[in-house]
Amino acid sequence: MKEKVAVLGAGSWGSILASVLDENGHDVWLWSNSQAQVDELNNQHTNERYIPNYKYSETLHATVDLKEAVDGAKAVLFVVPTKVIRLVAKQLVEVLSELKQKPLIIHASKGLELGSHKRISEVIAEEIPSDLRREIVVLSGPSHAEEVAKKDITLITSACENLEAAKEVQKLFMNNYLRIYTNTDVIGVETGAAFKNVVAIGAGALHGLGYGDDAKAALMTRGLAEISRLGVAFGADPLTFIGLSGVGDLIVTCTSVHSRNWRAGDQLGQGKKLDEVIEDMGMVIEGINTCKAAYELAQQKGIEMPITEAIYHVLYENKDIKEEINLLMRREGKAELG
Amino acid sequence: MKEKVAVLGAGSWGSILASVLDENGHDVWLWSNSQAQVDELNNQHTNERYIPNYKYSETLHATVDLKEAVDGAKAVLFVVPTKVIRLVAKQLVEVLSELKQKPLIIHASKGLELGSHKRISEVIAEEIPSDLRREIVVLSGPSHAEEVAKKDITLITSACENLEAAKEVQKLFMNNYLRIYTNTDVIGVETGAAFKNVVAIGAGALHGLGYGDDAKAALMTRGLAEISRLGVAFGADPLTFIGLSGVGDLIVTCTSVHSRNWRAGDQLGQGKKLDEVIEDMGMVIEGINTCKAAYELAQQKGIEMPITEAIYHVLYENKDIKEEINLLMRREGKAELG
Repeated sequence: MKEKVAVLGAGSWGSILASVLDENGHDVWLWSNSQAQVDELNNQHTNERYIPNYKYSETLHATVDLKEAVDGAKAVLFVVPTKVIRLVAKQLVEVLSELKQKPLIIHASKGLELGSHKRISEVIAEEIPSDLRREIVVLSGPSHAEEVAKKDITLITSACENLEAAKEVQKLFMNNYLRIYTNTDVIGVETGAAFKNVVAIGAGALHGLGYGDDAKAALMTRGLAEISRLGVAFGADPLTFIGLSGVGDLIVTCTSVHSRNWRAGDQLGQGKKLDEVIEDMGMVIEGINTCKAAYELAQQKGIEMPITEAIYHVLYENKDIKEEINLLMRREGKAELG
Repeated sequence: MKEKVAVLGAGSWGSILASVLDENGHDVWLWSNSQAQVDELNNQHTNERYIPNYKYSETLHATVDLKEAVDGAKAVLFVVPTKVIRLVAKQLVEVLSELKQKPLIIHASKGLELGSHKRISEVIAEEIPSDLRREIVVLSGPSHAEEVAKKDITLITSACENLEAAKEVQKLFMNNYLRIYTNTDVIGVETGAAFKNVVAIGAGALHGLGYGDDAKAALMTRGLAEISRLGVAFGADPLTFIGLSGVGDLIVTCTSVHSRNWRAGDQLGQGKKLDEVIEDMGMVIEGINTCKAAYELAQQKGIEMPITEAIYHVLYENKDIKEEINLLMRREGKAELG
């Protein structure tokens, strides 16, 4: 059934998810706050800065007018950067109040709110009162926008406590190159997506230091065990971490040289100072903030997260990486499942 | 405490585990049925065919005499190829009966017995009566012998229903480059190690066909979900598959071009016929047999294993890989868990 969907955020992932929805036959309105980008999308049907050499369908609409994008939409998809989620949600509330609409909310952003360490669905739920929306569904998993653009195969998770809402989103997006699996564990899906970047810094650092495949697989596995312990302390199902938003996304992030977090770790492993790494990258390295969040949450909850702590010591306390690795290896023997 | 340990099998992994035990201060006797290899180990302290350019300690003993190796040993470690486990276990029974000994049994082999599809600890338990042995402990995880030889970092699992026995093995092997985690789920550890090779064939095939990182991460994740479902049907704890013997070993096997199973899949993906691939490799490709075992076990237990079935269709029924992938992608939408 053809539905109107508003997609908020026209970066690489947002514009490609909009393109998938358009191709699946929906009436898609892509919102951006850049008039130049909207003009490019509407006139040239391109988005060169984000997805070079890709042609968007002529039936896809772009607009800077949030009200125009949302008016009559059955679903609103957030794909804006994490740091502006709250701001955009506030803007959406104004529009929804005016339009008297109650759309399904979907988000495909990753991370935690800076400072509060809140999950994105929590931020959205705080800002958009339940009389102005239906459920909040999370889309997450191992996905490079460039691969979806090429119609390569990608599998992601649609998560909502309400399974019917998760299925609705599954139906909206699923086609023969993008396959969606439902999950009812929102906490597990969002925490896995957020904390994987910390492990990616560690995997990059081991690479930069010259360690082999065994060490990297070990770090990813034990890193996932930590993430899972932290997630479970917040109410997640540990089995979610074996899924697409957990181990799936972790594999892509920790084995791709394109991951910013992995590259930052690689440079740290090669002996660069953190300041230099940050300056060199010229972009936000999310894992650096997320590491602090994980460290603080672990302290609050009394969760053992030795790998996260070691990365925190290197990033925030100027400790030596090799010495931190030695300390990790000299810990007493443990059981796999804590 | 210094203990005598017998290591049965002087291939790459067996000889390196023997070397680790020697370095940890134990009295290690490495058994091989090749006099030439035993002489090389005792005289040149090398094992060139298996670990080139590596010098073994002069305190490590090699012997072709099983009785000499086992006499007075507190523990016996099996690292022989899976297909001779039963044979070697029978030989060990004769020696143990004669010596009236009751050692701890450890094994570090991977796979299932051909035909019976039995796990290795089951085969050992069938052959060695409990009055001639203590517990059977499984060592498994992401481990290249070459990396352990270089004292790179490796983490593996020591699994036994009896936690104290698992801890005993942890203590025997653990040092500052090899870290051991205990686990009480033997079924989960052994099934993860055996079935990962099927997924590795699939990951190689996707590579050979030109698919990207998303597709490979998706295959590994959903492949792990299948392995986990099958393991659980045999009594495994699903969380074991998130551990070193599960996802850890899967990552190493599916991302290393050195994995035979991955390479076989890669060649199939490139369009080679199975016969050619087998001939080219000149070695056993375990995943081909394990795929048949998994397929048959899944049928018996009524477990849904679509990826395994697809690989089975390609390997055993001459089906087209691309068509199998299309069929997988066109299935109805599913939930991640269950």
